[in-house]
Amino acid sequence: MDTEKRRLLLVSNSTLHGGGYLDHCQAHISTFFGRLKRVLFVPYALHDRVGYACLARTKFNSLGYELDSIHDAEDPREAVRTAEAIFIGGGNTFRLLKCLYDNQLVADIRRRVLEDGIPYMGSSAGTNVSTISISTTNDMPILCPPSFCALALVPFNINPHYLDYDPRSTHMGETREQRILQYHEEPDTPPVLALREGCVLMVEGNQATLLGGSEARLFTRGKPTVEYNTGSDLSFLLTDEH
Amino acid sequence: MDTEKRRLLLVSNSTLHGGGYLDHCQAHISTFFGRLKRVLFVPYALHDRVGYACLARTKFNSLGYELDSIHDAEDPREAVRTAEAIFIGGGNTFRLLKCLYDNQLVADIRRRVLEDGIPYMGSSAGTNVSTISISTTNDMPILCPPSFCALALVPFNINPHYLDYDPRSTHMGETREQRILQYHEEPDTPPVLALREGCVLMVEGNQATLLGGSEARLFTRGKPTVEYNTGSDLSFLLTDEH
Ligand SMILES: [Ca+2]
Ligand SMILES: [Ca+2]
Repeated sequence: MDTEKRRLLLVSNSTLHGGGYLDHCQAHISTFFGRLKRVLFVPYALHDRVGYACLARTKFNSLGYELDSIHDAEDPREAVRTAEAIFIGGGNTFRLLKCLYDNQLVADIRRRVLEDGIPYMGSSAGTNVSTISISTTNDMPILCPPSFCALALVPFNINPHYLDYDPRSTHMGETREQRILQYHEEPDTPPVLALREGCVLMVEGNQATLLGGSEARLFTRGKPTVEYNTGSDLSFLLTDEH
Repeated sequence: MDTEKRRLLLVSNSTLHGGGYLDHCQAHISTFFGRLKRVLFVPYALHDRVGYACLARTKFNSLGYELDSIHDAEDPREAVRTAEAIFIGGGNTFRLLKCLYDNQLVADIRRRVLEDGIPYMGSSAGTNVSTISISTTNDMPILCPPSFCALALVPFNINPHYLDYDPRSTHMGETREQRILQYHEEPDTPPVLALREGCVLMVEGNQATLLGGSEARLFTRGKPTVEYNTGSDLSFLLTDEH
């Protein structure tokens, strides 16, 4: 698949502590969508689609964009076929991916982004589904999608809302790091880019750059984990060989 | 399915902060298994089955039981067919359930527990798979089982390692409560018994009792959540109507 036209804005979290919805990344959103007029919003990750579309519309309008929600479209596939840009919001990743499959949108969205080059923004669950699979989501498996394979707009996985171990904690459940290392105990598992809250990954063709106010952490099977500062060039993650 | 013979010891977590493996529930283990000689251990939730079986064997030997690990058996189905008792340990719930399906053990274990009345102990992931489905696990979906349906030894779901919201936290990922409430946004979802670390649920036939040092919290679709103290009779959860 050709990836020259690919344009992605992958956000770890839609709200940062103390701020409003998408406030922390609004400058990146404006840069990313530029002079586009309309964005197609996908609210499938939350139960209350009407309320969610309203929240997203208010924010996008304030940035100068019209927002259409796919749940209002008579034909969701046609909405994807004619979209100028797509934004998939966060919520529950399993619910989101199941709904993308149920509406037969997975291949269509992939084609529009990779072949037609329409910009794709994802937040949290919307970031998870942009990767190879949802195997590194933090969400509860409240619904069962037909597969964990996702849009595969990038050849690696992401863990959004990455949390460092809290040494004050007495909780004995696995730490986030332990969970990702368990993923890499399985053969042929791709790298996992752990995006702490505040992180944004911008992809332009075969160029990937880490943005936002936090560091990211890269887990690669059989290799030590590596920290990356904001501004880091992560383009090496876009080649299929690791 | 007849449930008169059912005997279950469902533990939230195998290790409590500051203690050793299964220390916090060892008195309940002795009471539960009584004069049995051998327990069949299922280490499928962890990658290192040899090390896991060794850990479990040391503990069970100290309590006066022999422990056979199913990963050592030539025929796992035969091991289940001849087991006096089963203990499924914690780790990753998706890996565990997939391996139970891959080895065609789901129906066999269910029959041995419900029809033959062999005692079943589960810890963490081993508790998740004893319920209707793994839809309320906390684990990362590192592998994809053919279904989220589990052993269905009880007609409800459990969330082990239940964590209360920490008001000091600045993390914006969903709280555990929010995740369970999202599950109940879906139709026809069963009650979720949230077992804080330290909780143990003992089931004898159609009698269920909460044990251990922590309170449990019950989430029922469309109803307020309820707290239960240790010693509470939770037998009402075993009837199929809620
Ligand atoms: Ca989420
Ligand atoms: Ca676990």
